[in-house]
Amino acid sequence: MSLNSFGHIFRVTTWGESHGPALGATVDGVPPGVAVNEVQLQHWLDRRKPGQSKYTTQRREADQVRILSGVFEGQTTGTPVQLMIENTDQRSKDYSEIAEKFRPGHADITYWQKYGIRDYRGGGRSSARETASRVAAGGLARAALASLVPGLQITGYMTQVGPHGIDRTRMDMGQVDENPFWCPDAQAAEEWADYLGGLRKSGNSVGAMIEVVARGVPAGLGAPVYGKLDTDLAAAMMSINAVKGVEIGEGMAAAMLTGEENADEIFMGNDGQPVYSSNHAGGILGGISTGQDVVVRFAVKPTSSILKPRQTITKSGEATEIVTKGRHDPCVGIRAVPVGEAMMACVLLDHLLLHRGHVGENRGRIG
Amino acid sequence: MSLNSFGHIFRVTTWGESHGPALGATVDGVPPGVAVNEVQLQHWLDRRKPGQSKYTTQRREADQVRILSGVFEGQTTGTPVQLMIENTDQRSKDYSEIAEKFRPGHADITYWQKYGIRDYRGGGRSSARETASRVAAGGLARAALASLVPGLQITGYMTQVGPHGIDRTRMDMGQVDENPFWCPDAQAAEEWADYLGGLRKSGNSVGAMIEVVARGVPAGLGAPVYGKLDTDLAAAMMSINAVKGVEIGEGMAAAMLTGEENADEIFMGNDGQPVYSSNHAGGILGGISTGQDVVVRFAVKPTSSILKPRQTITKSGEATEIVTKGRHDPCVGIRAVPVGEAMMACVLLDHLLLHRGHVGENRGRIG
Amino acid sequence: MSLNSFGHIFRVTTWGESHGPALGATVDGVPPGVAVNEVQLQHWLDRRKPGQSKYTTQRREADQVRILSGVFEGQTTGTPVQLMIENTDQRSKDYSEIAEKFRPGHADITYWQKYGIRDYRGGGRSSARETASRVAAGGLARAALASLVPGLQITGYMTQVGPHGIDRTRMDMGQVDENPFWCPDAQAAEEWADYLGGLRKSGNSVGAMIEVVARGVPAGLGAPVYGKLDTDLAAAMMSINAVKGVEIGEGMAAAMLTGEENADEIFMGNDGQPVYSSNHAGGILGGISTGQDVVVRFAVKPTSSILKPRQTITKSGEATEIVTKGRHDPCVGIRAVPVGEAMMACVLLDHLLLHRGHVGENRGRIG
Amino acid sequence: MSLNSFGHIFRVTTWGESHGPALGATVDGVPPGVAVNEVQLQHWLDRRKPGQSKYTTQRREADQVRILSGVFEGQTTGTPVQLMIENTDQRSKDYSEIAEKFRPGHADITYWQKYGIRDYRGGGRSSARETASRVAAGGLARAALASLVPGLQITGYMTQVGPHGIDRTRMDMGQVDENPFWCPDAQAAEEWADYLGGLRKSGNSVGAMIEVVARGVPAGLGAPVYGKLDTDLAAAMMSINAVKGVEIGEGMAAAMLTGEENADEIFMGNDGQPVYSSNHAGGILGGISTGQDVVVRFAVKPTSSILKPRQTITKSGEATEIVTKGRHDPCVGIRAVPVGEAMMACVLLDHLLLHRGHVGENRGRIG
Repeated sequence: MSLNSFGHIFRVTTWGESHGPALGATVDGVPPGVAVNEVQLQHWLDRRKPGQSKYTTQRREADQVRILSGVFEGQTTGTPVQLMIENTDQRSKDYSEIAEKFRPGHADITYWQKYGIRDYRGGGRSSARETASRVAAGGLARAALASLVPGLQITGYMTQVGPHGIDRTRMDMGQVDENPFWCPDAQAAEEWADYLGGLRKSGNSVGAMIEVVARGVPAGLGAPVYGKLDTDLAAAMMSINAVKGVEIGEGMAAAMLTGEENADEIFMGNDGQPVYSSNHAGGILGGISTGQDVVVRFAVKPTSSILKPRQTITKSGEATEIVTKGRHDPCVGIRAVPVGEAMMACVLLDHLLLHRGHVGENRGRIG
Repeated sequence: MSLNSFGHIFRVTTWGESHGPALGATVDGVPPGVAVNEVQLQHWLDRRKPGQSKYTTQRREADQVRILSGVFEGQTTGTPVQLMIENTDQRSKDYSEIAEKFRPGHADITYWQKYGIRDYRGGGRSSARETASRVAAGGLARAALASLVPGLQITGYMTQVGPHGIDRTRMDMGQVDENPFWCPDAQAAEEWADYLGGLRKSGNSVGAMIEVVARGVPAGLGAPVYGKLDTDLAAAMMSINAVKGVEIGEGMAAAMLTGEENADEIFMGNDGQPVYSSNHAGGILGGISTGQDVVVRFAVKPTSSILKPRQTITKSGEATEIVTKGRHDPCVGIRAVPVGEAMMACVLLDHLLLHRGHVGENRGRIG
Repeated sequence: MSLNSFGHIFRVTTWGESHGPALGATVDGVPPGVAVNEVQLQHWLDRRKPGQSKYTTQRREADQVRILSGVFEGQTTGTPVQLMIENTDQRSKDYSEIAEKFRPGHADITYWQKYGIRDYRGGGRSSARETASRVAAGGLARAALASLVPGLQITGYMTQVGPHGIDRTRMDMGQVDENPFWCPDAQAAEEWADYLGGLRKSGNSVGAMIEVVARGVPAGLGAPVYGKLDTDLAAAMMSINAVKGVEIGEGMAAAMLTGEENADEIFMGNDGQPVYSSNHAGGILGGISTGQDVVVRFAVKPTSSILKPRQTITKSGEATEIVTKGRHDPCVGIRAVPVGEAMMACVLLDHLLLHRGHVGENRGRIG
Repeated sequence: MSLNSFGHIFRVTTWGESHGPALGATVDGVPPGVAVNEVQLQHWLDRRKPGQSKYTTQRREADQVRILSGVFEGQTTGTPVQLMIENTDQRSKDYSEIAEKFRPGHADITYWQKYGIRDYRGGGRSSARETASRVAAGGLARAALASLVPGLQITGYMTQVGPHGIDRTRMDMGQVDENPFWCPDAQAAEEWADYLGGLRKSGNSVGAMIEVVARGVPAGLGAPVYGKLDTDLAAAMMSINAVKGVEIGEGMAAAMLTGEENADEIFMGNDGQPVYSSNHAGGILGGISTGQDVVVRFAVKPTSSILKPRQTITKSGEATEIVTKGRHDPCVGIRAVPVGEAMMACVLLDHLLLHRGHVGENRGRIG
């Protein structure tokens, strides 16, 4: 029942605070015999790492991941894998202001109300830094998926930054790695650069929308009712810091469609697998994957730390004002992209193992 | 790890198929000493019951709930409560068509692909009928909340039906029980009546948006990272049939706001509790309740069963056409309102018990 | 985290009280496509049913099991199976004495101290009647095992009744079904008949030892550390009413052996599988099955309800005396035999599914 | 469902191998505000540490524990606590023999059969070294218990070593820390010294029996059926390496008693709490604590590594002989004493939090 864990069989427990000695992920249920090493995991961590462009926090963290257990001679053994990342850039600074004042939009006040104690240095456990652990675990999940479902691909990208959305007719997945925003629309990326540059100078911040797509997911993953694939994806994405909404396929827009408009008709493909006229469902029917692309979107709120003074109260209940200085992201959504991918990888691997355990390999064949 | 269960301490497992002898909920972790009886639970079930207006399915089910265990002399004993609802209107009819053909938008094809067997009578386990069990469990959760958190109120209502949304300036919660749509805007309710009347005649269907608000939630419920209150709410709502998106507070729109616009500033209230200038957060910061209203929205897709013929395939892979006759809801969102309320009640009670277990009563005081 | 559930993938939640309308088991994680029906399950329930000889309680219960969900056209569908047994022989009698007085050795006092409320009719949830639900679930597990591991056999029997143990040189498994004690030693069975006859007349009771053996268990089931096969077997058996100790293989006697005496040497069998010189380990090494017989023993304390007056207190704390009349078992161990078998079946199936999920079919080959 | 975790609310996941860089415990559900530091935890680790007498392995490990998260300014914050112990004495040696041959009585063969890969250096995950993590977690549990249940005491000791048992009439708890065997009987300790000295020289080993007693446990901990306090204790103890049997109170001997002999009669104590004439029950009735001493015993098999040659096979299935050299414990039971205490502490804290969450503070009062 651990509240810092996710997954059923492939089970990830993250630990550690933003300014403690280290943070990491304890990962149980990793299938044995998966080839993995620190270099591979580092690849994914480097994508999330801060300080890579002027649009993300200037905190300098090497985010070097170490594998402390569960891997022997380059292969997983089936026992728990401990992934540790040491915190190296914990600037010694004066925390007395945020120790006493609650920063609006942050978890300062609720942690205090809940626990009566909080690690006030940089958000403690509620810091976005916690997501480094998830990316490390996601790297492990990707390695396992690569051997179990060859061809499965997971790609995340931003589709909206404040008022500026991408134009889907211009989408080109080749662009995603070519700009600091994981943006598949080169023109939108340029607009975002201008827009975020301005925001950053004014000390403001902005929200964003991220889309994560998994291609090559086998049909049959998920389970009825509460073990739905979309249920677990919704939980996975909503658990990421600052996320305020999650959609599958048509998402919130489904409220506005008729049954005729929303229908994904079914045909038989040349390869003997069903094909669909459209993918309003986002690759999931009744909680179970159809074999189409699994499509998830989530919205990230604007970073709460801004340079504009805000009204708040102190621990002793006195009214005061706060300006949150520090090394913050003007658009925390950017670094949420690799995190969303990692969560997708973890959920898919978990459901693959669940399916294999509960049902085995004998599925219903069509035709 | 049951895939048909939800909740950590207050743990609900639903069972049963649409056309089997009965369905129900096995509820463990119910606090002892809660006054509850079948009449109370029936009140909530009657709100979800089909056939109450021409806008919902005409299937006639008494939906009579029985308490088979865990209640003694009108009080819960702390042992599992079994809630059973017998299916009474299982029309004997010819299922041979849907036994062979996969209905688009339904779980027919994915259940088949996953399990290689499915109860094809009326959707089996994937039928919206399963939500009756949730409403029964939700009634139990409400009874427990009533004794543990006096004053806590949970209200659900529809805010959008296809192209027609409510006007929030006209919202009047007194209207919610006065129309068949749980609509807080009397004028919108009239528009919906016309619109849905037309859809029903043409054999079409439409999606909807539901909002559920909990007032009087104590600050401090929820937990960091994966045990976030919003994580569990997202999972709870996404697990309801036909739901395609879930939002907390500002939700997907947060992607479009700046940090300045999104900030909920903090003040000290006259009662010695913090008050906020706004509630963009939807009552949750860092996964933990602030004491403000907890606000969740979810989108329900249009009913997939429509009278218009649709292309599909058979179990043997042959192309065919299907028209889904039957007693279906033109807008399944209507009956999702009491289900959303039930899920909110279950999640809040669960987190109340979790908090009490993990932290106890000693919270951080402000002031 | 349900406290009335056991199993990881094959997950059984039992519910119901001794004198309520019904009791049963909600079983999730049942593999799809398993042939099962009520007649098959009834077979196992009839073995545990009371009133079959003068050595067990004279309560007359049909113990008729009904399958309410999860089985369609004679096969499991992979969705939750609800197994319900109605209570039919709830004699109306005067419970005022046991409502006020705590019966020594029963859970009356601890339920009261824990919950502040208890169903005092016949033990409520703590009644041995709860084990009927386990036997029903065990029947389902056996059906699944029969299709997944042909040849696997589970047999339980009594080895000790008070001072009278079996003589292992006289063991003959063919005897087990030939006497009312599941005794593999015909001579011991005769001694027990005499001994228990005397005890019954004097209103006394006695403890017993039960051994359950699973033959044909594949090597590789279980997991290191806390998911050990023996850990789960110990929990399963200890959770049965009145059990006070559990042993695997050599058990408590291992404390008295030297390493030389305890070693199970390994050889290569003619069939290409390892064979062992002995089975001190009880078929489990490091928490994982070896392929040898899995051997578990557990001790059941004497029935606490005896005719001899005993000192106790009332709910209001006054000293008093109690004689527990009623229809009790002079040796509750007899009916624990089918329960132990059922728990073994559930644990083995669960670990089979766990193994299949986590590791898959590719195991390490020897040779 | 993590198979390397135990506990419901206070949830411990251990990780790490005997010869990897480090091992440890990720502990979630730690109540906030508990004063704890590394020095306190080290106290418990030092009791389990190898190399403290000639009767335990001569491996030299500092077993220095580090707290990497979840503690801030000397107090727990309610977030996960990471406890890490670096392995320092991993002698570089030739493992080629045990890499190829399966050591009888060890998990070598079953890990191989299960996973098809194993860390063959010193037992990997199945090494008794894993229990260092448990002792660290147990230290944390003790710290929390000290603040939540002042006066609760947990004491473990050995009662049997091979043929030599303690004489309970000579028991003196003051002796436990005065000899290298945690023996409460000074005379038995001398016998053990002689006996183990001889065994060690001859390269043999021996089993042992450990008893752990918790005094001052409040009445009401535990839950019916599968969440029984004794169920969790049985699982906890059986999960320790080399344990083959677990007993509560009268234990296996209960099989030999009559109801008259086994009855613990109830009286009212001067302090308004129930007292009992005896404690055959071991402090637990119906799975729930009575307020009496909770008494658990477990048997540890003899160390499998002995100097006498044993028959075995290689990975390729060839017959061979093995002599397990190395730095092993002649009686691994000695170091199991602090481990048993740690497991008791973890289980009691967990059930205390469970009770507080599910039931709250309002229990049934007697009188």
